[in-house]
Amino acid sequence: MAGPLISLTTDFGLNDPSVAACKGVIWRIAPDARLLDVSHGVPRHEIAAGAAVLWAVLPSLPVGVHMAVVDPGVGTARRPIVLRTVRGDRLVGPDNGLLLPGAERLGGVVAAHALEAQAYRLATVSRTFHGRDIFAPAAAHIANGIPDEAFGPEIDLSTLVRLDTPAARTSAGVLEATVGAIDSFGNVQLLAGIAELEAALGPIAGGDALVLEPVGAGGTERDGAIGLRWRLTYGEAGADEPLACLDSYERIAVAINRGSAADRYGLRPGRPIRIRRDA
Amino acid sequence: MAGPLISLTTDFGLNDPSVAACKGVIWRIAPDARLLDVSHGVPRHEIAAGAAVLWAVLPSLPVGVHMAVVDPGVGTARRPIVLRTVRGDRLVGPDNGLLLPGAERLGGVVAAHALEAQAYRLATVSRTFHGRDIFAPAAAHIANGIPDEAFGPEIDLSTLVRLDTPAARTSAGVLEATVGAIDSFGNVQLLAGIAELEAALGPIAGGDALVLEPVGAGGTERDGAIGLRWRLTYGEAGADEPLACLDSYERIAVAINRGSAADRYGLRPGRPIRIRRDA
Amino acid sequence: MAGPLISLTTDFGLNDPSVAACKGVIWRIAPDARLLDVSHGVPRHEIAAGAAVLWAVLPSLPVGVHMAVVDPGVGTARRPIVLRTVRGDRLVGPDNGLLLPGAERLGGVVAAHALEAQAYRLATVSRTFHGRDIFAPAAAHIANGIPDEAFGPEIDLSTLVRLDTPAARTSAGVLEATVGAIDSFGNVQLLAGIAELEAALGPIAGGDALVLEPVGAGGTERDGAIGLRWRLTYGEAGADEPLACLDSYERIAVAINRGSAADRYGLRPGRPIRIRRDA
Repeated sequence: MAGPLISLTTDFGLNDPSVAACKGVIWRIAPDARLLDVSHGVPRHEIAAGAAVLWAVLPSLPVGVHMAVVDPGVGTARRPIVLRTVRGDRLVGPDNGLLLPGAERLGGVVAAHALEAQAYRLATVSRTFHGRDIFAPAAAHIANGIPDEAFGPEIDLSTLVRLDTPAARTSAGVLEATVGAIDSFGNVQLLAGIAELEAALGPIAGGDALVLEPVGAGGTERDGAIGLRWRLTYGEAGADEPLACLDSYERIAVAINRGSAADRYGLRPGRPIRIRRDA
Repeated sequence: MAGPLISLTTDFGLNDPSVAACKGVIWRIAPDARLLDVSHGVPRHEIAAGAAVLWAVLPSLPVGVHMAVVDPGVGTARRPIVLRTVRGDRLVGPDNGLLLPGAERLGGVVAAHALEAQAYRLATVSRTFHGRDIFAPAAAHIANGIPDEAFGPEIDLSTLVRLDTPAARTSAGVLEATVGAIDSFGNVQLLAGIAELEAALGPIAGGDALVLEPVGAGGTERDGAIGLRWRLTYGEAGADEPLACLDSYERIAVAINRGSAADRYGLRPGRPIRIRRDA
Repeated sequence: MAGPLISLTTDFGLNDPSVAACKGVIWRIAPDARLLDVSHGVPRHEIAAGAAVLWAVLPSLPVGVHMAVVDPGVGTARRPIVLRTVRGDRLVGPDNGLLLPGAERLGGVVAAHALEAQAYRLATVSRTFHGRDIFAPAAAHIANGIPDEAFGPEIDLSTLVRLDTPAARTSAGVLEATVGAIDSFGNVQLLAGIAELEAALGPIAGGDALVLEPVGAGGTERDGAIGLRWRLTYGEAGADEPLACLDSYERIAVAINRGSAADRYGLRPGRPIRIRRDA
């Protein structure tokens, strides 16, 4: 019979042994666990980028324990927590906004507990590596069936730290949204789906001409407007042709067929943009 | 008892959660499967490079299900397929030439089927991520014992798409071959083995002096000839000394001991070269 | 029941299929083994860096078989070996100094054997890829319970190759140490712990002002002295502020909060440094 699933998402990178130290701790406690690497390439300390990764991938994963560590505040006062989702998953990590978007995509949080019990931490907890010393042992003990209540007091859900990510806004003929994540190919994922796009622009169909405008920090247009067409898939556009499409995570993507839209247009996570129809 | 083996080879990279989404889908269907990452660093959209990776590694892997996705045509008309090999493996991926060289190295293809049955795809199939929505579920269902015939109609083997890779050619004292793959150390693997080299140059022994000439696209010599010696292993050459040897995948390699031959000589996959003896 | 653990540490990188070939060989022999990637990003041919990775991670791993390959001398006379530790682990790899520091951190070596028996190698051993042809099959057979003695003659422990790494030295108010490893964040790990630091400088407390001096190869001070403060964790320092702390592997680290100390100060593995109190 298959062992319990523990997924891992971090900004540790793969060159030093940090990820392996976490897995070693997990397997010393829960030797039967099946370990699934989500990504260890989250940009360093970028909590919003880590949250976007979890948001995107969690619906594809089995119900399980999902440990995530993007934790610039390690060793300071931020709380180590476990969230229980409607679906039955447990999300383990720091209370800094990293876990909530993914938990909400799985139906929402039904309970949160602090990870405080010494019995479920390593004997010595360093000030600098809670991934190995607190989160990995917690994930393993949860996989072994220890109930959330055993780890520490229940946390009022309204006190959980939330990311300050602007929601997409629609007005007469204009969608305003924020760049969420960039994939390995340089495709740019917006924090908006087809519902928001059609709320702003009306029903959209393959071939429709659109204009994308990156917006400066102050709300001024900084760069030129980019003309592109709505496509059903990347390969429908000609080579090197810009396009927008619904990506595989149900979000609007801006892409260049066989090229990098992120590099060409300088689009980075957090950048606001506007989309309208080409008049 | 060990679960069935599923290997994964893609050009997805490891920074975004695409690989994890595929693995999550697999484990939701086949929780006992043992997952083996071959490489997710195939150069983006380079079908021939992905095929070279499979060619090299498959003989070292157990009989199993081998899923490979290097798929610039995702969402267009190219067929999703499963190939059955003489050895009993299943190769799952797009019908674009990616799978055939590896399948032939395992003894050849005995049957091919299209992956069409809705029952063995995700409920919603995106236009942009068939790795997660078609290939991963197919690989998992095959690992669970679903027969190839259940996925769709049998495909005439003569209609499978083949890569257009030139075979090595031998003439009086000259081997003409193509650069296949570059490894992490910058060693350059030629699409030729010892049999082809000795057919052109006669019996070869450690220390024999050779000349390698990169050839321009039009067949003209573009760069200077490179003098090097035949060696039994990389460490036999002095530091920074160029050499040729039989690599660990039974192909001729051009290398620089503790250096990168690919970088120094500008050798990239697809580049034609000639080798002759130093007169 | 969980299968035996085999960890893998190499300088192969993840782009070519070398790591996968080793894992494939292992699973053909020991299909139940649980495989744990420590790192495949050890800098190429840097034996000391690989040894530092093993030193850091092995105490976090379960007792098991630990295969490590950083092997510039592959195919030459260096011996393939297995070390047995006090804790019961087996360390498998080349006799070039890579394995000893990690084995000693696990309590020390109780026996060493050469890996010579043809029965426990692949049928054909290449000159260039002993990871796949000698070390992976040895690791798998050991995981299956084959005793060390079956692989080849016992080796006199005094003949094992040792790295030439200088120990930390303390004198009146000065700690002299060597840079060991750099992690993914650019934090610089010194080959010295809190005991050595306090032996040189007396009891140390959060906020204490220190001076770090990189030392040139000839023992002359080459770069300017760096002022920093002792901290209990990275996040205690202001953004972009240099600090020293005890890292999560019980060694002194030099870091910049949210920056790279390795890049800013040009600190690389092997570089000697001095630390004293700021007068």
